[in-house]
Amino acid sequence: MKFGIAVFPSKKLQDLANSYRKRYDPHYSLIPPHLTLKEPFDATDDEINKIAKKLGEVAKNAEPFTLRAYKISSFQPVNNVIYMKVDTVPELLNLYETLNKSDFGKESQYSFVPHITIAQKLSNDEHSDVYGSLRMAGVDHEETVDRFHLLYQLENGSWTVYETYRLGGDS
Amino acid sequence: MKFGIAVFPSKKLQDLANSYRKRYDPHYSLIPPHLTLKEPFDATDDEINKIAKKLGEVAKNAEPFTLRAYKISSFQPVNNVIYMKVDTVPELLNLYETLNKSDFGKESQYSFVPHITIAQKLSNDEHSDVYGSLRMAGVDHEETVDRFHLLYQLENGSWTVYETYRLGGDS
Repeated sequence: MKFGIAVFPSKKLQDLANSYRKRYDPHYSLIPPHLTLKEPFDATDDEINKIAKKLGEVAKNAEPFTLRAYKISSFQPVNNVIYMKVDTVPELLNLYETLNKSDFGKESQYSFVPHITIAQKLSNDEHSDVYGSLRMAGVDHEETVDRFHLLYQLENGSWTVYETYRLGGDS
Repeated sequence: MKFGIAVFPSKKLQDLANSYRKRYDPHYSLIPPHLTLKEPFDATDDEINKIAKKLGEVAKNAEPFTLRAYKISSFQPVNNVIYMKVDTVPELLNLYETLNKSDFGKESQYSFVPHITIAQKLSNDEHSDVYGSLRMAGVDHEETVDRFHLLYQLENGSWTVYETYRLGGDS
């Protein structure tokens, strides 16, 4: 089964992200707007039981963090993904690094660029148009995040939440 | 904000339900297949904080239960909803009754028919066709449920998980 770890921001920021995703993100109906903490990985039922327990420990030892989305950016030329760029605060970076160590399946090949995707799978021309207008619209939002979720993927590509973890361990 | 309380069954049962929902349920992309424990209700941020805490207590005092989906049924003539009928075991009924007491917003007006919706908003003719074939296909599935989720609704009608509660309180 395929699992992933993500943060869902507040309804307010999700509604804003969805107003763009509806038009520009083919994953719009597969998962709510999110900040990925760990890219999708495979695990058996046994493995995920162990991982789920470990995640409880990780959450207890982590801290709530300030999610500040402060500009619209793009991964081009790597790919045509447009996203809300999120401030890399130490608490978030620590959490990411812990979750991407080898004890939770594979390590990440990328350096961490915290973000909330709002457009993807655009042609180069679309990307250029959409990026221009979204960058002008901009984003300026701040909130406190106190939880993350472990999710699994269904056959149709959509994601279901398996477990919620409270940062700082206040459950 | 609008909140709801639901159980997501295992990936296996969700995949089966989605194979029908894809064609017959306009809510297919708004929420994964689920068993509703409490119908959508409105709550402010303050109210939901209190409710979220109470739910922790409820979960601790509840027990995991056997979810047995044993036949395809329909709410007609009340409405044209077709669903997998789920066995009303005492643990599930107790949980439902606790969640639908007045301390969690409004009480339910309906008697509890545990179910997983697989088709809705069908015309009478469609209902009759689809119900005929789904009833023949049938369902026979059993699993243990050890958690439920508190969700909130976004402006586009989709649902995001806010918190996960483990039955029996093993967190």
